[in-house]
Amino acid sequence: MKALRKQKPMPGADLVDIQIPEPGEHELLIKVKATAICKSDVEVIEWTPLVASANYDLPFTMGHEFSGEVEAVGKFVKNFKKGDRVAGETHIPCGYCRECRTDNQHICTNHMGVLGRTVDGSFAEYIKIPEISAIKLADDANFEHMSLLEPMGTALHALQKAEPSGKIVAVLGVGTIGLMACELAKLLGAFKVIAMDVNEKRLAHSLSLGADIAINGLNTDLVKAVMNETNGQGVDCVLDFTGNVKVINQAIDILAPTGILVHIGMVPESLTISNYMYRVVYRELKITGLYGRHMFKTWETLMRLVNSGKINMDAYVGMVLPMDEYEKALEQFNTINGRAILIP
Amino acid sequence: MKALRKQKPMPGADLVDIQIPEPGEHELLIKVKATAICKSDVEVIEWTPLVASANYDLPFTMGHEFSGEVEAVGKFVKNFKKGDRVAGETHIPCGYCRECRTDNQHICTNHMGVLGRTVDGSFAEYIKIPEISAIKLADDANFEHMSLLEPMGTALHALQKAEPSGKIVAVLGVGTIGLMACELAKLLGAFKVIAMDVNEKRLAHSLSLGADIAINGLNTDLVKAVMNETNGQGVDCVLDFTGNVKVINQAIDILAPTGILVHIGMVPESLTISNYMYRVVYRELKITGLYGRHMFKTWETLMRLVNSGKINMDAYVGMVLPMDEYEKALEQFNTINGRAILIP
Amino acid sequence: MKALRKQKPMPGADLVDIQIPEPGEHELLIKVKATAICKSDVEVIEWTPLVASANYDLPFTMGHEFSGEVEAVGKFVKNFKKGDRVAGETHIPCGYCRECRTDNQHICTNHMGVLGRTVDGSFAEYIKIPEISAIKLADDANFEHMSLLEPMGTALHALQKAEPSGKIVAVLGVGTIGLMACELAKLLGAFKVIAMDVNEKRLAHSLSLGADIAINGLNTDLVKAVMNETNGQGVDCVLDFTGNVKVINQAIDILAPTGILVHIGMVPESLTISNYMYRVVYRELKITGLYGRHMFKTWETLMRLVNSGKINMDAYVGMVLPMDEYEKALEQFNTINGRAILIP
Amino acid sequence: MKALRKQKPMPGADLVDIQIPEPGEHELLIKVKATAICKSDVEVIEWTPLVASANYDLPFTMGHEFSGEVEAVGKFVKNFKKGDRVAGETHIPCGYCRECRTDNQHICTNHMGVLGRTVDGSFAEYIKIPEISAIKLADDANFEHMSLLEPMGTALHALQKAEPSGKIVAVLGVGTIGLMACELAKLLGAFKVIAMDVNEKRLAHSLSLGADIAINGLNTDLVKAVMNETNGQGVDCVLDFTGNVKVINQAIDILAPTGILVHIGMVPESLTISNYMYRVVYRELKITGLYGRHMFKTWETLMRLVNSGKINMDAYVGMVLPMDEYEKALEQFNTINGRAILIP
Repeated sequence: MKALRKQKPMPGADLVDIQIPEPGEHELLIKVKATAICKSDVEVIEWTPLVASANYDLPFTMGHEFSGEVEAVGKFVKNFKKGDRVAGETHIPCGYCRECRTDNQHICTNHMGVLGRTVDGSFAEYIKIPEISAIKLADDANFEHMSLLEPMGTALHALQKAEPSGKIVAVLGVGTIGLMACELAKLLGAFKVIAMDVNEKRLAHSLSLGADIAINGLNTDLVKAVMNETNGQGVDCVLDFTGNVKVINQAIDILAPTGILVHIGMVPESLTISNYMYRVVYRELKITGLYGRHMFKTWETLMRLVNSGKINMDAYVGMVLPMDEYEKALEQFNTINGRAILIP
Repeated sequence: MKALRKQKPMPGADLVDIQIPEPGEHELLIKVKATAICKSDVEVIEWTPLVASANYDLPFTMGHEFSGEVEAVGKFVKNFKKGDRVAGETHIPCGYCRECRTDNQHICTNHMGVLGRTVDGSFAEYIKIPEISAIKLADDANFEHMSLLEPMGTALHALQKAEPSGKIVAVLGVGTIGLMACELAKLLGAFKVIAMDVNEKRLAHSLSLGADIAINGLNTDLVKAVMNETNGQGVDCVLDFTGNVKVINQAIDILAPTGILVHIGMVPESLTISNYMYRVVYRELKITGLYGRHMFKTWETLMRLVNSGKINMDAYVGMVLPMDEYEKALEQFNTINGRAILIP
Repeated sequence: MKALRKQKPMPGADLVDIQIPEPGEHELLIKVKATAICKSDVEVIEWTPLVASANYDLPFTMGHEFSGEVEAVGKFVKNFKKGDRVAGETHIPCGYCRECRTDNQHICTNHMGVLGRTVDGSFAEYIKIPEISAIKLADDANFEHMSLLEPMGTALHALQKAEPSGKIVAVLGVGTIGLMACELAKLLGAFKVIAMDVNEKRLAHSLSLGADIAINGLNTDLVKAVMNETNGQGVDCVLDFTGNVKVINQAIDILAPTGILVHIGMVPESLTISNYMYRVVYRELKITGLYGRHMFKTWETLMRLVNSGKINMDAYVGMVLPMDEYEKALEQFNTINGRAILIP
Repeated sequence: MKALRKQKPMPGADLVDIQIPEPGEHELLIKVKATAICKSDVEVIEWTPLVASANYDLPFTMGHEFSGEVEAVGKFVKNFKKGDRVAGETHIPCGYCRECRTDNQHICTNHMGVLGRTVDGSFAEYIKIPEISAIKLADDANFEHMSLLEPMGTALHALQKAEPSGKIVAVLGVGTIGLMACELAKLLGAFKVIAMDVNEKRLAHSLSLGADIAINGLNTDLVKAVMNETNGQGVDCVLDFTGNVKVINQAIDILAPTGILVHIGMVPESLTISNYMYRVVYRELKITGLYGRHMFKTWETLMRLVNSGKINMDAYVGMVLPMDEYEKALEQFNTINGRAILIP
């Protein structure tokens, strides 16, 4: 089968022919129908210093956001059969470490497998995953849409930390996952969603997906604008997708006392918060982050929402291309609204 | 009456004679029987840049940790009478702002009064406070002990954020409030308390008050020592009393995934946490701080514990002096174990 | 001034002339502009055995759901002035008991005052209330709408216990407060709202206010219908407004494991739940109730929602009459959709 | 091997010879070293109507509280090896149903396996269990003590619902699990533990295990006694082990407003709570129950406590007998303090 593989510790990737994998006794073999490109995939191709420093075993098949159809099942698989439509969770927990045993499988500390990094991923005609990682989809599920569940789950996970119901939520940075967060926040009962970005197209997109207010951080003072919009009270939750130290410091200022800041974006090496005592400690702010999706509370709520048809999935499809045109997708990665989806 | 007052915007304080205050209709006039010196009082006397920058109206009577006996009550006071023994909450909330109306009176944002800063304090023969700020004590309460309730409430408030029951708790910095946190953590069911300081006398004290392990950060690698003590898992909660950036970064490392860091110490102007993404965000740590004592959940639990006799109050009394010897207390502030208590 | 008073311990009420009250130093005198009739007011007029058994001091002015305009303020009132539009909280907490000091003023156990029962109420041209009980309204607030905030707060309080965001919520009994709960549940992000009643008009009303499904318990098996609608999983929360023992037992059956049942309706003297072990205990259901509105978390969120214009307030106005036609309102109490509102 | 089996749908059990089971690929074969008798085992032997109505497939090996040594492991087992000391969780979740995927494996709704009922149990020389159900013990663990972990986990699970830290806890019924709850409540920081039973020996035992007060419900008015002990405030949590309707109604009365009642005992067919509105709803009590032990938060905390040596395990060993003398154990079941433990 065709697979887009990382073979050498340098920039680039190779579209090569490899064996179709054999599913183990508790695994599914899935024919990949659609697979989306995440920023982390771009970084693997570019072989950034951060990625290089992780010392992954090479070669591996890239990709982890996908949907497909079950092709074959291992002999102990009980809940899936050939023909079922499925998506997959990227992280494969050990199931036995302390994190796994205390409802934190998503941050398993015992050599958790990661699709497209330590385990062969979804930029291929077929992928195998453990039954436990498979998410059953509706029989008529749209594969392109469903290849977006994994990043959408990250947005939902952030909201599960922020608890937006009845609250004013600021979403800082409305790339694809930030946009998803705007829409999901409203579905979960956010009172008001304030989007911030430096790209007007994205901001317009956020308004059409449910944001109540869109602020361009390039030409508007975020703190003043938010204070104006909230009668000087500030917001209850901030989801930061920018990872930008200056923006994160503004996030502190726009939070009302006891508010929560959730980091989702890639925060740079070191984070400095100024006037920490008065802005964070004495105002009892809460700061936290997240990794991946909660297994499987995030997925249970996500599938409920997705299956209801309440989510405007089309909005997150930026472009669809056959897998061999992946370079074209990479070129336009930063300019499109929504994900680039490859069809293997 | 005699009162220790801050009169001029420069180092120093004056022991002067002023009028005994008149209690308002909802206020109590209290004869101060014992009043303890907090580090923030020392800073007011030293007139540190931070204190100077707060632009307090001068003059004011200093002091806020105290106990005493009701001398007179305003005409609408319902719950106290002459002769009752009382302690007092330092912060006087407005009662009407959003914080006050959502169970956060202790961080009232509407010109909250502060004893010993914006409202005349307890380094005096008499003090007046609103009925709502008064804490009723047992008829045979020990005044010296009870002058320590206010700082002890801060330690308890930190633990109410950390929820130590069944958990491994690290207390970093065991000055008086840190010591109190060690003892209270055990009373609240902490599984194990690990104390860290650079002062051997304090560390010995912490062990006698319930800490299971005492680590001298001067000659021991905190992170290694904690990992050894916890089978490599780390701790569930850290209470940081040091405010030291290096120690706070170690605190991040000793926390198990999803653990909580509570800041109580004075954190310097700006805080930098390195490798923030991998250490904080991806491990889903929670970071927060606190101010004062929750009104009045902290006090309700504190009085339950104090009245039971379970707390070793004597352990926190460093020295007792008549108020006019306050300079002697200041001289030895950093060397004694426990608080210096003045008797007006 | 005119006031509708309960004067004798027997059915009936009297519209009489009494003195306009004098506001105390911390009180507001309010000109009542609109005041709604609650079922409990009907019970006071009917002098039901339950009401009779409460031994209220007579006479008293009835009524507690109201809005109006500040006419005068006591000398210590800080946050209101003549002309401000206000609504009022029915319960007047002592402020000093353990409940009051632990964020439960609404269930103050120390002789809490109750408007229209132990304190003169709002079926009158003027009412006085403590400043702490007053809710500031917008300058252009609609008085009829705002007379409904108090019962709407009860609906919101129930939802604050149930936490409906992302959840399937069943609202059993859609009288006025049940209808409000349907609309508020959706605003707070309920995934699906299932309304049940035995009155087709009310059910139709619930659908127009946001319920997704309306079930007539008279001719439909509630349990089967709910299980059909939820793929056999059941609902996450039930708000019971019926107080009907049979319905409450059905509520247990429609709850998914670990679901929550919140009682708001008047439950009869004794409640029997059958097969309790298997249905409640082993499935880890949570059962609770509520009283009034949380002071003031409920009000803070309620005013945010109301001021945003997101709530269809007109939907809850059943009829508007001058106060002297109160008997007409009582006659039709059970047939109208929404509240009967009196104009003093 | 020898096994105590339920073979016929009538009172009795048979000690018979059967094949040693073969562990599957993900299973452990364990040599049972000690296995305790639970009240539910007695009911299986007596074949009570409740047990009979469950329609279990016969025959099956009884027993589910045990400890032992790993004899052999299936080929995919990763975390255990021959010679390891282990205990086992009674319930075997499916891993794929909604409950299993939302952190509620212990109430798996998809044909969860139950040792000693639907899956062969521990009253035998060997038992096989899935790796996921096995709990690793210390190398020098005492087998008799460790056979008590399963019921002790139930006590801990109840406390995890009640959150006893800093609270006043009433434990109603101090059979073995009630006694364990007394000791664990204190370890978790309960401020005060009040034990109630009708058996003086058990009450004395509860005092030696940490209860602060022991009340004999036979000759003392529980409600009055508790109110005396709590200055009229009542308790914060009740753990009910009696399942007795009269006692449960008293439990409602001794709870302070907003308190929590956790059912652990077998509640009879139907439960009636009188004056429900005023006692439960308006006081915002919380009522809940539990099943088994949380997988695996309960076990993680339990093993931390057990391994620390803080628990007085000997206190719960009532008698130790060879398995063929099981009838002697049954005879004395209700008279001993602690569990009867069989050695196969």
